[in-house]
Amino acid sequence: MYKEQIKKLLLEVKTEHVSLEDALRKLENLPYEDLGFAKVDHHRALRKGFPEVIYCQNKTPKQVTEIFQKLAAHNHVLATRASEEVFKFVKDVIEEAEYNEIAGTIIFRNIEIENKPVNSNKILVVSAGTADMPVAEEAVVMAEIAGNLVGKLYDVGVAGIHRLFNNKEAIDDANVLIVVAGMDGVLPSVVSGLVDKPVIAVPTSVGYGASFQGMGPLLTMLNACAPGIVVVNIDNGFGAGYFASLINK
Amino acid sequence: MYKEQIKKLLLEVKTEHVSLEDALRKLENLPYEDLGFAKVDHHRALRKGFPEVIYCQNKTPKQVTEIFQKLAAHNHVLATRASEEVFKFVKDVIEEAEYNEIAGTIIFRNIEIENKPVNSNKILVVSAGTADMPVAEEAVVMAEIAGNLVGKLYDVGVAGIHRLFNNKEAIDDANVLIVVAGMDGVLPSVVSGLVDKPVIAVPTSVGYGASFQGMGPLLTMLNACAPGIVVVNIDNGFGAGYFASLINK
Amino acid sequence: MYKEQIKKLLLEVKTEHVSLEDALRKLENLPYEDLGFAKVDHHRALRKGFPEVIYCQNKTPKQVTEIFQKLAAHNHVLATRASEEVFKFVKDVIEEAEYNEIAGTIIFRNIEIENKPVNSNKILVVSAGTADMPVAEEAVVMAEIAGNLVGKLYDVGVAGIHRLFNNKEAIDDANVLIVVAGMDGVLPSVVSGLVDKPVIAVPTSVGYGASFQGMGPLLTMLNACAPGIVVVNIDNGFGAGYFASLINK
Amino acid sequence: MYKEQIKKLLLEVKTEHVSLEDALRKLENLPYEDLGFAKVDHHRALRKGFPEVIYCQNKTPKQVTEIFQKLAAHNHVLATRASEEVFKFVKDVIEEAEYNEIAGTIIFRNIEIENKPVNSNKILVVSAGTADMPVAEEAVVMAEIAGNLVGKLYDVGVAGIHRLFNNKEAIDDANVLIVVAGMDGVLPSVVSGLVDKPVIAVPTSVGYGASFQGMGPLLTMLNACAPGIVVVNIDNGFGAGYFASLINK
Amino acid sequence: MYKEQIKKLLLEVKTEHVSLEDALRKLENLPYEDLGFAKVDHHRALRKGFPEVIYCQNKTPKQVTEIFQKLAAHNHVLATRASEEVFKFVKDVIEEAEYNEIAGTIIFRNIEIENKPVNSNKILVVSAGTADMPVAEEAVVMAEIAGNLVGKLYDVGVAGIHRLFNNKEAIDDANVLIVVAGMDGVLPSVVSGLVDKPVIAVPTSVGYGASFQGMGPLLTMLNACAPGIVVVNIDNGFGAGYFASLINK
Amino acid sequence: MYKEQIKKLLLEVKTEHVSLEDALRKLENLPYEDLGFAKVDHHRALRKGFPEVIYCQNKTPKQVTEIFQKLAAHNHVLATRASEEVFKFVKDVIEEAEYNEIAGTIIFRNIEIENKPVNSNKILVVSAGTADMPVAEEAVVMAEIAGNLVGKLYDVGVAGIHRLFNNKEAIDDANVLIVVAGMDGVLPSVVSGLVDKPVIAVPTSVGYGASFQGMGPLLTMLNACAPGIVVVNIDNGFGAGYFASLINK
Amino acid sequence: MYKEQIKKLLLEVKTEHVSLEDALRKLENLPYEDLGFAKVDHHRALRKGFPEVIYCQNKTPKQVTEIFQKLAAHNHVLATRASEEVFKFVKDVIEEAEYNEIAGTIIFRNIEIENKPVNSNKILVVSAGTADMPVAEEAVVMAEIAGNLVGKLYDVGVAGIHRLFNNKEAIDDANVLIVVAGMDGVLPSVVSGLVDKPVIAVPTSVGYGASFQGMGPLLTMLNACAPGIVVVNIDNGFGAGYFASLINK
Amino acid sequence: MYKEQIKKLLLEVKTEHVSLEDALRKLENLPYEDLGFAKVDHHRALRKGFPEVIYCQNKTPKQVTEIFQKLAAHNHVLATRASEEVFKFVKDVIEEAEYNEIAGTIIFRNIEIENKPVNSNKILVVSAGTADMPVAEEAVVMAEIAGNLVGKLYDVGVAGIHRLFNNKEAIDDANVLIVVAGMDGVLPSVVSGLVDKPVIAVPTSVGYGASFQGMGPLLTMLNACAPGIVVVNIDNGFGAGYFASLINK
Repeated sequence: MYKEQIKKLLLEVKTEHVSLEDALRKLENLPYEDLGFAKVDHHRALRKGFPEVIYCQNKTPKQVTEIFQKLAAHNHVLATRASEEVFKFVKDVIEEAEYNEIAGTIIFRNIEIENKPVNSNKILVVSAGTADMPVAEEAVVMAEIAGNLVGKLYDVGVAGIHRLFNNKEAIDDANVLIVVAGMDGVLPSVVSGLVDKPVIAVPTSVGYGASFQGMGPLLTMLNACAPGIVVVNIDNGFGAGYFASLINK
Repeated sequence: MYKEQIKKLLLEVKTEHVSLEDALRKLENLPYEDLGFAKVDHHRALRKGFPEVIYCQNKTPKQVTEIFQKLAAHNHVLATRASEEVFKFVKDVIEEAEYNEIAGTIIFRNIEIENKPVNSNKILVVSAGTADMPVAEEAVVMAEIAGNLVGKLYDVGVAGIHRLFNNKEAIDDANVLIVVAGMDGVLPSVVSGLVDKPVIAVPTSVGYGASFQGMGPLLTMLNACAPGIVVVNIDNGFGAGYFASLINK
Repeated sequence: MYKEQIKKLLLEVKTEHVSLEDALRKLENLPYEDLGFAKVDHHRALRKGFPEVIYCQNKTPKQVTEIFQKLAAHNHVLATRASEEVFKFVKDVIEEAEYNEIAGTIIFRNIEIENKPVNSNKILVVSAGTADMPVAEEAVVMAEIAGNLVGKLYDVGVAGIHRLFNNKEAIDDANVLIVVAGMDGVLPSVVSGLVDKPVIAVPTSVGYGASFQGMGPLLTMLNACAPGIVVVNIDNGFGAGYFASLINK
Repeated sequence: MYKEQIKKLLLEVKTEHVSLEDALRKLENLPYEDLGFAKVDHHRALRKGFPEVIYCQNKTPKQVTEIFQKLAAHNHVLATRASEEVFKFVKDVIEEAEYNEIAGTIIFRNIEIENKPVNSNKILVVSAGTADMPVAEEAVVMAEIAGNLVGKLYDVGVAGIHRLFNNKEAIDDANVLIVVAGMDGVLPSVVSGLVDKPVIAVPTSVGYGASFQGMGPLLTMLNACAPGIVVVNIDNGFGAGYFASLINK
Repeated sequence: MYKEQIKKLLLEVKTEHVSLEDALRKLENLPYEDLGFAKVDHHRALRKGFPEVIYCQNKTPKQVTEIFQKLAAHNHVLATRASEEVFKFVKDVIEEAEYNEIAGTIIFRNIEIENKPVNSNKILVVSAGTADMPVAEEAVVMAEIAGNLVGKLYDVGVAGIHRLFNNKEAIDDANVLIVVAGMDGVLPSVVSGLVDKPVIAVPTSVGYGASFQGMGPLLTMLNACAPGIVVVNIDNGFGAGYFASLINK
Repeated sequence: MYKEQIKKLLLEVKTEHVSLEDALRKLENLPYEDLGFAKVDHHRALRKGFPEVIYCQNKTPKQVTEIFQKLAAHNHVLATRASEEVFKFVKDVIEEAEYNEIAGTIIFRNIEIENKPVNSNKILVVSAGTADMPVAEEAVVMAEIAGNLVGKLYDVGVAGIHRLFNNKEAIDDANVLIVVAGMDGVLPSVVSGLVDKPVIAVPTSVGYGASFQGMGPLLTMLNACAPGIVVVNIDNGFGAGYFASLINK
Repeated sequence: MYKEQIKKLLLEVKTEHVSLEDALRKLENLPYEDLGFAKVDHHRALRKGFPEVIYCQNKTPKQVTEIFQKLAAHNHVLATRASEEVFKFVKDVIEEAEYNEIAGTIIFRNIEIENKPVNSNKILVVSAGTADMPVAEEAVVMAEIAGNLVGKLYDVGVAGIHRLFNNKEAIDDANVLIVVAGMDGVLPSVVSGLVDKPVIAVPTSVGYGASFQGMGPLLTMLNACAPGIVVVNIDNGFGAGYFASLINK
Repeated sequence: MYKEQIKKLLLEVKTEHVSLEDALRKLENLPYEDLGFAKVDHHRALRKGFPEVIYCQNKTPKQVTEIFQKLAAHNHVLATRASEEVFKFVKDVIEEAEYNEIAGTIIFRNIEIENKPVNSNKILVVSAGTADMPVAEEAVVMAEIAGNLVGKLYDVGVAGIHRLFNNKEAIDDANVLIVVAGMDGVLPSVVSGLVDKPVIAVPTSVGYGASFQGMGPLLTMLNACAPGIVVVNIDNGFGAGYFASLINK
């Protein structure tokens, strides 16, 4: 509904190439589908380069399934924070849906959409501990379905820092790094100190006591002295995978 | 028990239109009914324009039912944060009680009280996401039982801001807006930037990580730069509906 | 740039009552004036019923003065959080500017705009203590310049609750109440328990220790049990005055 | 083991009224009984005027029962935060133990200890809402077993402030006031503004959202402007009852 | 304006011992003096046993002086948090005003009011460190002007716990204890573990880092395991002195 | 000191092309210059693509100047959070140093290093209000000295959202967006909802009350529902500019 | 991979005592075993003096068992925060594994490793209350398996401070003290005030209300005035036992 | 006043080697000197191995000087957080006092006390940035005056991690490590991952935004995954130096 488009449309109205009614309808611009409890945003795939992702928490299995179905008609689909129960509901309707139980994600690959990696740039997902895997896997799933080559390097926290250094090659090989860590959250600072690649830091709620449900590592990452680090919300693997995908293209 | 009333009463005592005992009883002023564990405030309907609302959390089903019954004798009744179990207790005693399972509310419409909308002013309840519906519905139920025309506009969060703009008419049509949002809580700021209507912002506990059980959107709304926004407690749909009702009249 | 307006405009283009260029310019819709460091929002007076208010903190006296001048050409003007130094800058350019040193506000009444109260509804600004006066006065100034009748009731905190009760008449007489309190912030709860008027609660940073710069009274007010209370940001007298003005009309 | 006692003991050693060994044993001064997992503090009844109270949370039913038994040999006993399961364990061993299911307390009245009220001074326990009863009852139980006359005034929160004023007599009649409130926690401020009695304020975790598990009312009470208020920990009915008992004597 | 008083007054009106006008005036019950910016609460001395205390922060020297003068006509007066500048203003008008520069208090002893200690009960003010003296002295000044015998025991923090034990006699000799501590705030717990006297704990903002302006010791004191401790706001020496005075009588 | 380098070096040692001593020295790998109080990291320009940036706060003017000089020998130099006093010290020694007083930055452009933009990709720095300019300018300065084309779009906060929409073209034209906002911090959410470009959100400490020194907008941004947003520390314009520069290449 | 080792290795390469390939492999320095989801750090026993400890939370029983097995091949093994379910999995595979149900720890003593105490220095673990035992026992288990003599002194909190003083001998006898406390967390301050031994303070999440899941005692301990105290994370008995072991040698 | 001492004293009283009066005086056990505002703890040198240290904040220069003088009679003296003004006061009285202006410390070396290092064990003080120097130096001063060999390694933060690795020798050479860091506070985690030495982590208030006056690095350090780390209060260089000294002996 911006300047150039409107100008063109106005001209078409004036020259009677477009009727008044059609022009109006076009100006009602961006398409979405109204399910009552949700307005499915089909336009997002165009506007943002990837369709709306379904965040399952606080939605009923039935609501998730309905939105999933609508999106699956035209897009790849990703649902995050999905329990096995939710997956069963979706599976009943969309046979090809796949569940990643560590990540808690459901994906559907629409075969009408080409799915080879956009380019040979790699996103590397690094995690500090075994317990951070659910968040790391959510990032992996998101980045892969958006068409990226994705590598994994798990359990390389600084308590045994040689595990990180011994994988320097994998790190150097990546174009973008997602670094996932709970507890003290120091891994992104160390990784960023070693390379000139963008580092997306993901704090997790893994930890206890002074971790305060992830506030500890969140603050660590926001306060990072090494430049080249940005931060997403606690446990937000999806957001990191999405952003990495944006800048990997 | 204030000046004018007392002056009149004193005169009536002096002129012996009112006996000493009656005057005293009148001065014991405001009526309530004592159930031991609760003092049911019948006077509130007069004083505040709507009777006491029963907040069910931390009360036993039996306590709720007793209070409900007392209020139902003279008023419409609303109970919030009610589980299905509580509803069964109430239903056993008050056949006409109705349950809204999304909102978690029980209402009873006293047929002796007229129930047509007080005026043609509309309250519009806007929500950012599907997950915010329980809070939004609580606001709707409260506003409706208090005799208002209430509209709904759900799932129009700013991640797909065109869904909001395409409903500009509904927004312009309202007299008061209740805007419900969790996570980043930005919707009230955006809505308020568009209209000259009072906006009552309701933060919800929907979200994770840095939402900190709703503190995130609460701060967003309190810090709103757009004037014309006020805020109620996290998840307090009832309070928003009540206030909207007050200013819609 | 919304539906009805566009429809009309499209028709005018089609019927050649409006030229293509004019239509385009109109669709570049909302006017503002660009000062480089600021975009003065002249349209706000239409859209919101009151022009942009200048928040002086973190702006240089020169910046404030420039914006003030631009707004003064067409509107009443209000600047908040203004030091005496800022006032001197403004005064040099706009002779008629007036300073309220308690509130820290500068106002300019544009004589081309009528300034009698819109109606006979009263806004009453109540404050708990003498120290809360700067915030209370900011609310008063805002409400008055927007054309409201405004009353004041200061220093009636609950430590001497009879001071409040003895002014019950003034409270009953008001249409909207703004209640300003620091420290424990209990005054809005008590006032709201007494009347059926909307109460806008304003926490202040007055206090020490567990007040934590106003977080104490802010939480008190958000947690108010008495319905009919909404809350604005700490020390935000302006916001309360603005909202009161919106609902007083 | 303090000055006067030691002087006397030294003299007795010198004059050979007390043997070296006995003196040493006496100087190992204060008695307790060692259960391995707990050191039962029998001396506390002397030192503090009331025996050790058993806080049941994080203790096993068996541990509670063992400590209960040891204390019951010489004292009245009070156990707080006790589940029904814990009560069954205690009851099996101490037939006369009594359970208050609202307060979650177990008491045992040792018949060898006189149990009439120490004096005619009254402690009044006031609560804001029905949901605050468990905390209020804990205070009542504690104050009663320590030998005080205790009154109750429940559900008189400021949302219906006349319920409080109509009970002014009961308030005036008390020597010490315990005021229990959750949510906004304003009741102690209001009560203290009315009387010259010491007010012990007890915040509760009743509430939601900005109550933050009781931090809201805790801050309200600490920030109280009305002097004559002191505060105990959130939900600490026991502590309030104990302190009230100390100053009622 | 309560039951018994009103009954009596009604009777007097009926029997014409009191005129209608006089009755009304009496019912306008509690006296205060209105200075515009403040409502001086003369009635408080009757209602609360001690007149309104002037909290100087956020008040201008002129405002303090005016309130001081009004109170001095009938009462002893205490002003807290007073700078030397404020004192000079007051001194100019009330020659006999005295300044305690450590406590930051101004007092005036009205010679018409008897000033010998009410009884021989002692209040002991204990402080952990030299830096806590301003708060401790504020408590002392308040307790003394209210007519109590007050002792002092300063700099006996637990880093050198023998300094506390060597003064056990002074502690045993007191009727009420005020214990002032910043940093870790452990002193009240230790003192309360030794005696059966009520302990009023006062956290101070003395400290750095994890003290977070006094939140550290505040939490320590609220969490005290030793019963018999109550807490007032951070740095609130006045409140502790006031409460101690209430329970010392 | 990594695999390939070491392999090559080992071979050179074996073939005696490199002496034992030289190999050792080389393995002492990464160069820095030791000033005693600071270790200037010359290697960073190689490792990270941009030399160490001097953060002036908590450093003396003399320390800043010494580090500046060392870096200026081989690099462009950027110093942030610099007062005018610091600038004078630096200027005395490095004539060509330039000061940006809004951003508080000192830069030195080393003429030996080419300085034309690396490519035609644009970074757009968007700010919500005039008061956010110092942070926005810090981002601009950083991005420019690293060789990027940088655009500015200031004062387009959502209180007048049309100011944002009217600049849609500039937004669409950018490759990377830095969005700076204080108070409610909603601007990045809105911008990100409109485009498919990476958005780097920078919360500022501009605001008052519930902004809590920038924690308010920080939480808003971390909780953003619109994907494609990452966050840096409060007021960290430099970090945003650095990261934008990394991904713009 | 540090200087001296590299020098020696370089020499061996040069003198052909070590082949190029072997040298390279050695420089891939520190050994770990890759299980995919975890990288078991065998080198830690050499580097840190004790092997990697398995933190069971957020790991599946199967993952724990696999890591346990790998470590058990060469080391003593300790797993913390282990449920009984996890223990059963481990027990199935490693017959000799032992479970401490209070501490929630699984240990395996590798008979190939000598297990007599390294020296006669004692570590004393002191706890404030019975409820703190799980954390205290975790510290005991860790310190014992690392080869230390460990004593226990439980339930000696300051509410009955004589229980502490009567065990002064045990305290004086220790070389290092671990002091575990929840609620007010004052015990470490008091213990440290009595001795010249290093005190490792462990806050626990035992408590309620203002304990805020252990933040209360954590702050108390960090603010301790008595020097000679250091602090570990809330409930981190393992960390305290580990550190005590380090300094006991 | 403990068992063995008392037994011996009792015997001496019985055998008349000690008079009753002398025994009593001895039992008044631990010496301190009372200055009214402070109780100087001479006994601490015996009890704790180092005399009381003067914390200057919130004390007047005169108070500091008086305490300094008393301590100087028998001990080395250390005063921390001392301004230059305080130093001048002390210098006037104690000629030999020395000021360290970075650390803000005053020391006096009593020549009657031997001052050569107790042993050849080294304490190494490591700091992340130049801005952390005041805290690091406070630790150095404390450790040195207590008779330790102390090394320094400054400005080796992980943004340029090679600066740390290149000093591995100095780290290996130390017996105890004090690691000082602000901002993200990750340095202690990294250092502890490399060695088997006890690491005392000191968070500093250096930083901005999400550092929240040092809370950021404090949480990082408390959450450290690498075992062998303990933490002291924010900016508490003195406490770290003291504890290091305790365990270095």
